[in-house]
Amino acid sequence: MHIPSLIAAKRDGAVLTREEIRAVITAFTSGEMPDYQMSALAMAIYFRGMSAEETAALTEAMLHSGSTLEWPAQAPMRIDKHSTGGIGDKTSLIIAPLLACDGAWVPMISGRGLGITGGTLDKLESIPGFRTRLDEAEIHRVIEKTGCVLIGQTESICPADKKLYSLRDVTGTVPSIPLITASILSKKLAEGLDRLILDVKHGTGAFMRTYEEAKALAQSMVSTAKVLGLKASVHINAMNEPTGHAAGNALEVIEAIECLQGRGPQDLEEICLNLAGAVSISSREHLRGFLHDGSAWRKFQEIVAAQGGDASKLEKLAQVHRAPVIREVRADRSGMLTRVDAYQTGLAVLNLGAGRSKASDPVDFAVGVDRLAKTGTQQHAGDVLARIHARSEAAAEAAEHTLREGITLE
Amino acid sequence: MHIPSLIAAKRDGAVLTREEIRAVITAFTSGEMPDYQMSALAMAIYFRGMSAEETAALTEAMLHSGSTLEWPAQAPMRIDKHSTGGIGDKTSLIIAPLLACDGAWVPMISGRGLGITGGTLDKLESIPGFRTRLDEAEIHRVIEKTGCVLIGQTESICPADKKLYSLRDVTGTVPSIPLITASILSKKLAEGLDRLILDVKHGTGAFMRTYEEAKALAQSMVSTAKVLGLKASVHINAMNEPTGHAAGNALEVIEAIECLQGRGPQDLEEICLNLAGAVSISSREHLRGFLHDGSAWRKFQEIVAAQGGDASKLEKLAQVHRAPVIREVRADRSGMLTRVDAYQTGLAVLNLGAGRSKASDPVDFAVGVDRLAKTGTQQHAGDVLARIHARSEAAAEAAEHTLREGITLE
Repeated sequence: MHIPSLIAAKRDGAVLTREEIRAVITAFTSGEMPDYQMSALAMAIYFRGMSAEETAALTEAMLHSGSTLEWPAQAPMRIDKHSTGGIGDKTSLIIAPLLACDGAWVPMISGRGLGITGGTLDKLESIPGFRTRLDEAEIHRVIEKTGCVLIGQTESICPADKKLYSLRDVTGTVPSIPLITASILSKKLAEGLDRLILDVKHGTGAFMRTYEEAKALAQSMVSTAKVLGLKASVHINAMNEPTGHAAGNALEVIEAIECLQGRGPQDLEEICLNLAGAVSISSREHLRGFLHDGSAWRKFQEIVAAQGGDASKLEKLAQVHRAPVIREVRADRSGMLTRVDAYQTGLAVLNLGAGRSKASDPVDFAVGVDRLAKTGTQQHAGDVLARIHARSEAAAEAAEHTLREGITLE
Repeated sequence: MHIPSLIAAKRDGAVLTREEIRAVITAFTSGEMPDYQMSALAMAIYFRGMSAEETAALTEAMLHSGSTLEWPAQAPMRIDKHSTGGIGDKTSLIIAPLLACDGAWVPMISGRGLGITGGTLDKLESIPGFRTRLDEAEIHRVIEKTGCVLIGQTESICPADKKLYSLRDVTGTVPSIPLITASILSKKLAEGLDRLILDVKHGTGAFMRTYEEAKALAQSMVSTAKVLGLKASVHINAMNEPTGHAAGNALEVIEAIECLQGRGPQDLEEICLNLAGAVSISSREHLRGFLHDGSAWRKFQEIVAAQGGDASKLEKLAQVHRAPVIREVRADRSGMLTRVDAYQTGLAVLNLGAGRSKASDPVDFAVGVDRLAKTGTQQHAGDVLARIHARSEAAAEAAEHTLREGITLE
């Protein structure tokens, strides 16, 4: 296989064969194909796209670049949820224990935050002791005990994806539907799932700005999953306003705990039940029961303990991670709240230090916003529209300015 | 400057500023910007193109990535010719001495052959002792003595182009008009020219297949040269049939010598006079005189001697490089010769060993074809249509097969 000719073929709109794609991924993973050829190929794919067959072949090749999780023949049904990411989206922390309550196994591999989008691993790591890097024996032990395991991508799972994602991130080749599809699904397929529910977001706080883009990605993922034998459903959800009232690592865990205890914000509970209900064998109402009878909360504590976390700290997380400055943002006049922009909120939270501008940045667990008012509510002058948790007065001041740009009172 | 954002901007069709382009080329030349970002940017440029201003900025940035040839204030007018390359195109070997005969200085930086296209440096190196790598002092000495110097790109001239070209060659990003324009013109501008004539080829044996593509490249080069203060003219010439009767390194030098002695093939003499005439202050007929009165031939011998070559070997080159197998390709019936395809001829010559598949391959000076019949001539069964110079009978057999696929007798 002559890699430059293959890049030129894709550049000119040709369809690559399954064998060619497999050879490319093998050569790239081993280092035989240099990064500069892969980045040029990724850019050609950005412009030319990939056929359904090519996308499936790429996903499969990336899946087989490393090891996969193997489950006993008699194991319960494996289910997972994947979201393309949004602001204040802590649904993974709720859906995973919920599905485990229902008897499924949930081997959930999550990511870290990047840019304005938070990451499940960062949120979980705000729980003292919680470990997201487990070896294979630990993964099996935790899931057998609790029905769920919440981990990051290991070195051995989809190494091609790990390498390609880092490269795409610095070469302007992230927003390509076939490349996103292959990246997400190769990892999900490596989990050895029976069913997957995909939550594709669109809006100001999402990677995909328009409904049409989200739909195109959703269709690509569902059809690729089907070709590769994974039953996947998809929900397309708007992300113009943050989910729930909180955004920031520990602040989101606190809100997730409230939801797991049956006292979470309505929009958060609804989206969790919608997604879990779409992929579970049980009804939405049956699942709601787990949130309100204490089962989901007990399950979450079990999982936390099984992964080394101190479950006794869960209800004290606000004290464990207490930002030095807490500032209330108040309505300067009365009116109907018509906009609480997800992008502006995400930007404020990122700049407070809860997120990362590049992969190697540390995150601050304590900072963020909570008590965010919801659109469609009537506000009076002086009402609290949000509460900012910051490292300094200056940071709080800047965050208030950013937040206010995203808020419209009419 | 954040390189990934800049790549994404070009990917999305933005116009980069002169400062951004300069910063990219500086970072790339120093190694600060990795190859994998440049190859992704080159692919984005392939798809999005560049404005006239961007192309000029890129050319200028590449020119200033290294040193340039500096000439005394009282030096004669500097003139050069550049061709986009074809099969049997030995015009540089004739035009350079011709313009020097006319009193100009010709500081010609040429390239090596790659693929089916031959390279002036390879042809010159078939002359025993001829050195194409000269230091700056030698360059000045040779041109002051002979009015001409025939060299390769030095380490210090346009290092950005050298690095970018190698990268484009292996990442499917060669056929981009702004990138080709910047690559050619940055080197020509580094020669410190007053005038430049460009020979843009189109056809089966040319890089550009269609007249329209050739025209687009020609326009890009002329307008970019103008912005950067270089007076350039362009001729667009068909390359469907090889120029002259010979293709292959030493075989082309032999034919060039015949032309310099006033007894070359008509098509070769015509194209040389057309190109030289377009850029010289003298008339085409005045220049023709140099070919027929011995001046051009004497000038060539002078140049060869000044660059270390053994001028006494020039008329014995057929003995110096004698291929072990010489096979005649004969007409199998009578008829009008309507096609002698440049691509098929180039492919045969490449496979005989005269060219390179990759930059590090060695070339065989002796092999190639000569006595190629011209289209439009009447042939009789048994007439010689071409003569193959090969290392082995098997190579000659294969070359005959390839050549015959390009020949049509009607």
